[in-house]
Amino acid sequence: MNQKRAHNFSAGPAALPLEVLEKAQKELVDYQGAGASIIEMSHRGPEYTEIDRQARERLSRILGLGDDYEILFYQGGASLQFMMVPYNFNFEKTADYINTGSWSKKAIKEAKVFGDVHVAFSSEDSNFNRIPGNDELSFSGKGEYLHFTSNNTIFGTQFRNEPDSDGTPLVCDASSDFLSRPLDIKRYGVLYAGAQQNAGPAGLTIVILRKDFLEKARKENVASMLSYPTQVGTLYNTPPVFGVYIFNYVLEWIEQKGGLEAIDQLNKEKAALLYDEIDRDDFYRGTAEQASRSLMNVTFRLRDEALEKAFIEESKKAGMSGLKGHRSVGGIRASIYNACPKESVEALVTFMQEFRSRNG
Amino acid sequence: MNQKRAHNFSAGPAALPLEVLEKAQKELVDYQGAGASIIEMSHRGPEYTEIDRQARERLSRILGLGDDYEILFYQGGASLQFMMVPYNFNFEKTADYINTGSWSKKAIKEAKVFGDVHVAFSSEDSNFNRIPGNDELSFSGKGEYLHFTSNNTIFGTQFRNEPDSDGTPLVCDASSDFLSRPLDIKRYGVLYAGAQQNAGPAGLTIVILRKDFLEKARKENVASMLSYPTQVGTLYNTPPVFGVYIFNYVLEWIEQKGGLEAIDQLNKEKAALLYDEIDRDDFYRGTAEQASRSLMNVTFRLRDEALEKAFIEESKKAGMSGLKGHRSVGGIRASIYNACPKESVEALVTFMQEFRSRNG
Repeated sequence: MNQKRAHNFSAGPAALPLEVLEKAQKELVDYQGAGASIIEMSHRGPEYTEIDRQARERLSRILGLGDDYEILFYQGGASLQFMMVPYNFNFEKTADYINTGSWSKKAIKEAKVFGDVHVAFSSEDSNFNRIPGNDELSFSGKGEYLHFTSNNTIFGTQFRNEPDSDGTPLVCDASSDFLSRPLDIKRYGVLYAGAQQNAGPAGLTIVILRKDFLEKARKENVASMLSYPTQVGTLYNTPPVFGVYIFNYVLEWIEQKGGLEAIDQLNKEKAALLYDEIDRDDFYRGTAEQASRSLMNVTFRLRDEALEKAFIEESKKAGMSGLKGHRSVGGIRASIYNACPKESVEALVTFMQEFRSRNG
Repeated sequence: MNQKRAHNFSAGPAALPLEVLEKAQKELVDYQGAGASIIEMSHRGPEYTEIDRQARERLSRILGLGDDYEILFYQGGASLQFMMVPYNFNFEKTADYINTGSWSKKAIKEAKVFGDVHVAFSSEDSNFNRIPGNDELSFSGKGEYLHFTSNNTIFGTQFRNEPDSDGTPLVCDASSDFLSRPLDIKRYGVLYAGAQQNAGPAGLTIVILRKDFLEKARKENVASMLSYPTQVGTLYNTPPVFGVYIFNYVLEWIEQKGGLEAIDQLNKEKAALLYDEIDRDDFYRGTAEQASRSLMNVTFRLRDEALEKAFIEESKKAGMSGLKGHRSVGGIRASIYNACPKESVEALVTFMQEFRSRNG
């Protein structure tokens, strides 16, 4: 099949590695000679069991999980985790949250249904244009965990390092920079991520739980599907088979690329190309503070909305998609997750230069 | 691609129409010339928006929903609905449940977390080998709804018609016979179904809510992802894009086949072929009472376990998969959902005849 590829800068669901898509395409009707698609087979049969095993083994190896963590392949996106985390760990207790954008706000809202929430920092007053320094965090002193959003898709900001929580377990919504760089995993009590930015198709959520933290989960009068202790270590119900299947190939692709160190290096190079172009003069203006800039979502504005509209229209004609910024920020957003090739970023930089020449 | 097809009798995830799989395969890398896969695009973009619209329109037309119902394309399977239904409609109230199998039992267990449950009938004493007659139902008299499992995948039983609830809204787990026959839809307050038997891949759950019943849903102090009123009428978070995409093509296939009347007729013919063969003599023995037999899952036993094992082994060599019965019943289970072709059922009947000749 002749398959053209756009330069895809979608914020999510987002670009996947072409190799992964081509492999899935080849197998979609007949999975490795079994005479049926992987989406037509029992999730307890040998084919899916092997995929599940491989995906867990690869994820564990890539993140260095060792024996201290449980992995859930779940459904419902980060949005369901917003409530599952407090349902399990902050029921009639207190937890600390860092508010760095729309997703943090939603997580805080859901946590308040179940327990007390102490907001340790908020950048809402400056339209979420920055990430706090550690000296700006003010804790409740009795938090069960410290929740943060590692990358803010909408506002183009990202934690460079994990916040210093003074020993309190971190709970992280890592949806939009999951597997984009190495993590200090031992500091996390829970790390969760919707797959649809860096890991696979929408409909799969990856949840990683530290075993000693998991022991603190609520056990009385809980709904089975919302209970982490009930869900770990078993296929409680039918998993999102296609999502895990694609995720397993994405993990294979990450290892083939050299793992998270190599991926991180490539992501830094890609982001630098764009930020260098933005900082060249004041034709393009980054919306996030420099020290808080995301390597995943590069947000910038032009001098007026008419010019921004022209930029987006002309970029489409140049074979680029997904560059329109979120309405909360306006302007342009280039999402350059793991699977966005460097060539696409280079094409965008060239387009930005030409657009400046024509309109500067 | 040369793609062989097994005779697939998997109980779930289960066979999908070959035409649907082939269409998805063709488009998997490049969706209709867009230069990206449908799983790489924003769920708020024009491509997915059109898929979502088509799927809702087709489902509404096929089931005759009119303006009285809301449709949710959700995640988490029937298992999440087991708790969402009582969370919304039976919070500190009473609901009636009919217990006809493992899935009914799970639904009852989750409902007890939130409210009182009155069991209006149970066939557990006879290993769930039958469905109640209307005269066997004993109601609480104050139930918010009457919950039933329309088809019992494991035990091979199925409600021929909706139970008579005396006006109380029905809530139905229709996971394993959804879209297999026409329904008296106006009697349902909620109908939910995991997609992985008749509708699409695992990871999509279809929830249909009657608007006047929806008004009774709990509104105070609810988690957003568990609240039906919050979820309807909007894409609250990223939907399971691939699942809805496949579901839309399955709906198209159902309409091309002539809709639910035609599908029902075909399903009756397929089931009759198998039950006639089972009833021919006592070599094969159906496990469900005749009046309760499922058109979706045909369960039967042979004279001993050794012979059952031989049946399953030899069926695999004859190109058939998924025939091993669930451990709760033992023996053989042939799942013959919508997408299982009549030719596969005929092949199984021929195999059953030959197997009887060799071992009778």
